[in-house]
Amino acid sequence: MISDKMKDYVSKSSIIRAMFEEGKRLAAIYGAENVFDYSLGNPNVEPPEDIKKAITEILSEESPNLVHGYMSNSGYEDVRDIIAKHINKKYDLKLTEDNLIMTCGAAGGLNIVLKTLLNPGDEVITFSPFFGEYENYVKNFDGQLVIVPSNTETFEPDLNALEDAINSKTKAVIINSPNNPTGIVYSEKLIKELGEVLERKQQQLNSSIYLISDEPYREIAYDGVKVPYILNYYRNSIVGYSYSKSLSLPGERIGYVVCNTEMDDFKDVMAALNVANRILGFVNAPSMFQRVIAKCIDSKVDVNIYKKNRDLLYNHLVKIGFSCVKPEGAFYLFPKSLIPDDKEFAKEAKKFNLLIVPGSSFKCPGHFRLSYCISYEQIERSLDSFDKLAKKYI
Amino acid sequence: MISDKMKDYVSKSSIIRAMFEEGKRLAAIYGAENVFDYSLGNPNVEPPEDIKKAITEILSEESPNLVHGYMSNSGYEDVRDIIAKHINKKYDLKLTEDNLIMTCGAAGGLNIVLKTLLNPGDEVITFSPFFGEYENYVKNFDGQLVIVPSNTETFEPDLNALEDAINSKTKAVIINSPNNPTGIVYSEKLIKELGEVLERKQQQLNSSIYLISDEPYREIAYDGVKVPYILNYYRNSIVGYSYSKSLSLPGERIGYVVCNTEMDDFKDVMAALNVANRILGFVNAPSMFQRVIAKCIDSKVDVNIYKKNRDLLYNHLVKIGFSCVKPEGAFYLFPKSLIPDDKEFAKEAKKFNLLIVPGSSFKCPGHFRLSYCISYEQIERSLDSFDKLAKKYI
Repeated sequence: MISDKMKDYVSKSSIIRAMFEEGKRLAAIYGAENVFDYSLGNPNVEPPEDIKKAITEILSEESPNLVHGYMSNSGYEDVRDIIAKHINKKYDLKLTEDNLIMTCGAAGGLNIVLKTLLNPGDEVITFSPFFGEYENYVKNFDGQLVIVPSNTETFEPDLNALEDAINSKTKAVIINSPNNPTGIVYSEKLIKELGEVLERKQQQLNSSIYLISDEPYREIAYDGVKVPYILNYYRNSIVGYSYSKSLSLPGERIGYVVCNTEMDDFKDVMAALNVANRILGFVNAPSMFQRVIAKCIDSKVDVNIYKKNRDLLYNHLVKIGFSCVKPEGAFYLFPKSLIPDDKEFAKEAKKFNLLIVPGSSFKCPGHFRLSYCISYEQIERSLDSFDKLAKKYI
Repeated sequence: MISDKMKDYVSKSSIIRAMFEEGKRLAAIYGAENVFDYSLGNPNVEPPEDIKKAITEILSEESPNLVHGYMSNSGYEDVRDIIAKHINKKYDLKLTEDNLIMTCGAAGGLNIVLKTLLNPGDEVITFSPFFGEYENYVKNFDGQLVIVPSNTETFEPDLNALEDAINSKTKAVIINSPNNPTGIVYSEKLIKELGEVLERKQQQLNSSIYLISDEPYREIAYDGVKVPYILNYYRNSIVGYSYSKSLSLPGERIGYVVCNTEMDDFKDVMAALNVANRILGFVNAPSMFQRVIAKCIDSKVDVNIYKKNRDLLYNHLVKIGFSCVKPEGAFYLFPKSLIPDDKEFAKEAKKFNLLIVPGSSFKCPGHFRLSYCISYEQIERSLDSFDKLAKKYI
């Protein structure tokens, strides 16, 4: 008796659950330390000590009915004000609390943005490979996700293909940098050119095309690379931010959406986001963690831990013959599989206790994703399995 | 450029915001202690001390990556197990963790339930007066809310009218007891008869009709009244529970959905609820507060504080000539307005600094709602204003 839409989702989720069960089965046979689960994006780096300190302070200093109570559906004004000032300082902007809505993570943020923007049949463009949930989020509001392939040598989006894909139904473009699953960071040059394409098409079509940047990995960037802030480059821009990875709080569902003041219908968009947060059932982002964020505004996890993991795993894989774009951010590698059939390759990998996700799940077959947010020691132990896997093909 | 559906919501929300601004304006003129805001359902009773203690223990004893990390989209297994056992003990059931999904409050719970059940055009029945968000939640999934009036002398649902309203498109019935806005509690006799109507119609129509009980006020009940648990009376039953009021944690967005094992397609429903939690962007209920609930499973706010408020306000209003069904639960009164036009009556009330919500907002004109989750002293101070208001009409 479940809805037709959900029937499809349930059958897919059974496959994921089967994968998860398989991991547990292998761990039972070989021991957890000999099963190498590269499938999940669950941060292993501990949250900064500041988080615990902030919670303790809040509980002793602030009124419990304030800390755990309802506030505006957009979030506490003082918290939004602190975040706005933080963004202004980092990216030279003039935002206020009125530009922000606190959300249940980036996933909650993307959903209220799409609820706000989409009429049935509207199109949203993204670049493959991409985080598969985008398709579900767009479908939630009867929109259509249009996939524009990236250049698989660099994983940078193909802007000519983007320009061709835009039409009068195009309501938004979703980007994600640092990227899941490739780990690449979009350069300033790329963001500028992307903005130019969108501006040109808006004028041609006399429409508004919103650029939505999904940014759970903004702070997870290496080697001094800069992650450009789209509000500096494009008028109709929206950022969906999450503290899930920057503070290792993925279970707490805390993030925000920030909109460019110069965008079309700014006030209507902000009012609609506020209402969407309420009527989709989020009501508001979890209250105490909003207040924690305000106290920990300058905190960050130790990114160096992820960088060491990246270096160890990337260098080894390249050495033994894998082809892989070197990631500058997030905690994923997206190498080419050693045979064209990535699902078959993932099956082979499992024989060496390596749990990896086929690129097809990100609409980019012939590749596989490794989430290296596991311990350095576990990665070290896994290298031998990669050697054995590679030897079968090289 | 916002979506057509959202335009309508935004215009409505502006009216609510205007009301809120008006309250602030009055407080600035007359002082906050002389403005009597009976409009909001934000609990004023403090959360039990156990909550603070539980958080402190969790932070010192449990691994931060567990406490703040991802878990199954359904919630931590150990937390669901503890809640299931708690329900079993109270209501003599045999639930396990597999019957429960932890949710972002009851609002998040209702949304994943409706996402799971509704095909476009499906009908969901509720009884007026009712919490206005039900209409929005049903519309989120392109369903149609069908409103069956209650008997306004008792606010009990009219079961004959329910039977007439059910047809082959009816997918669910939403009830809410203790009720917002009337405060009434559905008796065991009523729940039994309701179950019989639904069972009869299911057989006639050869369909499944799910009974969804929205229960944020279950623990807020007075005078020893029993709140029947629908899983004991009807096979296709789902409870959406929230700790927002029972533990005064409305901002933390923590609750659960529990389904009857005997329902049609139980396994599919549970799998779909898990997926719906993920793809609607909730991902999971806030992690740390799941663990807090497990530690505070027997805790409850001091309901006696609300009871005293009810007695003071109810007795006074009846004494000065208002007609009102005596509420046995929740923290609302729903008296008849002294003129048929409840919106006009609310405007008049504002002249005496009384902020009240017209019954029309709950699809029950000629009444008004008072949320008495404010301090006893504030209620005392407000009585004079009610006297003056009543004198204009009686």
